Amino acid sequence: MSLVRVHNFSVSLDGFGAGEGQQLDAPFGHAGSRLMEWAVGTRTFREMGIPGESPGSSGVDDAFARNWGSGIGAEIMGRNKFGPQRGQWEDDGWKGWWDADPVFHTPVVVLTHHPRPALEMEGGTTFHFIDADPVAALEQARNLAGGLDVRIGGGVSTVRQFLAADLIDHLHIVLVPIVLGRGEQLWDGLEELEQRFDIEATPSPSGVVHLIFTRRTAG
Amino acid sequence: MSLVRVHNFSVSLDGFGAGEGQQLDAPFGHAGSRLMEWAVGTRTFREMGIPGESPGSSGVDDAFARNWGSGIGAEIMGRNKFGPQRGQWEDDGWKGWWDADPVFHTPVVVLTHHPRPALEMEGGTTFHFIDADPVAALEQARNLAGGLDVRIGGGVSTVRQFLAADLIDHLHIVLVPIVLGRGEQLWDGLEELEQRFDIEATPSPSGVVHLIFTRRTAG
Repeated sequence: MSLVRVHNFSVSLDGFGAGEGQQLDAPFGHAGSRLMEWAVGTRTFREMGIPGESPGSSGVDDAFARNWGSGIGAEIMGRNKFGPQRGQWEDDGWKGWWDADPVFHTPVVVLTHHPRPALEMEGGTTFHFIDADPVAALEQARNLAGGLDVRIGGGVSTVRQFLAADLIDHLHIVLVPIVLGRGEQLWDGLEELEQRFDIEATPSPSGVVHLIFTRRTAG
Repeated sequence: MSLVRVHNFSVSLDGFGAGEGQQLDAPFGHAGSRLMEWAVGTRTFREMGIPGESPGSSGVDDAFARNWGSGIGAEIMGRNKFGPQRGQWEDDGWKGWWDADPVFHTPVVVLTHHPRPALEMEGGTTFHFIDADPVAALEQARNLAGGLDVRIGGGVSTVRQFLAADLIDHLHIVLVPIVLGRGEQLWDGLEELEQRFDIEATPSPSGVVHLIFTRRTAG
């Protein structure tokens, strides 16, 4: 059975998944790198191209981080995760934040009100630009996933919309003990979300707490 | 050295320390008992008079809960914790939510814009009704505490004000994995609070996560 999964999604104590003022050189806004510090030291993120002196840790942070790709046949992401542009695309020059061989290695559905032709990259990643609600986007992603799971890759509003539509089976939240004060809220409109999930908490020596939400009934 | 401490203070994933619609028969508003379920099963809370069939658990929830009274010489609470009345006191009949022998057994400073004479109860608890800002209230509480620590007993806005004034040395937050959606926010106005604290996380089999904030520099 194909599940819908979210991995490595960091939020602050006050529920922000990104800070205020997101832009090209500050994808998490005023939060800077604070929400992802737990991840950059892991072997998984080193292998995705995050630079560092050591080969990366293989402790509990890495154990959770590593699950992001296993059994995934497609990702759905918001346009904000694909690039900083808004409105009509000026040209087809922007090919995402990643290099010629993006880390995904699967089809990726990019949600946008401005569809454009699919963009095939090296290594198996193809970006499909689609204007669709969560249910329709998931149907398209499942068609592309070849029976494997679908990952909801973010950003914050994309994850929130899929949670609100009750489409997510497995949710990995990384609670980072910081107070951001402002930014993009994950939990808005999700009152009583916990009633649909079993929730398990695991702390890490890095200071974060991994929260695993497992949906109680199949979708 | 006398420290200022907060214990057993529950917040939801979205940062609410109480729900919406707090009133006499619903002190946590629409949150009901959900924020305190972890506590009512502990031996510490049974000994405070919370009814239950077993003698109460002595696991990690109880270990943290039990610290609330040790070494405390006085408590400061908001008026909302003392009673549901607002504005001028109609008479002196209300003696708090507790019985003739309240659980505190120390002086208790009640913050109110409507001072009234001190109220001496059985068992060592005396309520002092004071109109003061956090710094002045703490000075009075320290005078009453005989060199012991001072506990900030809540509610949410009282804890938030003392955190904003940087007066708290030890903060025990119990993160309850629920999304309340509305109510009284603990974290408002506390951006970068974490920079003043070392933070340790311990999960409990009950599902909550205990977060211990220890102030980095003495006040």
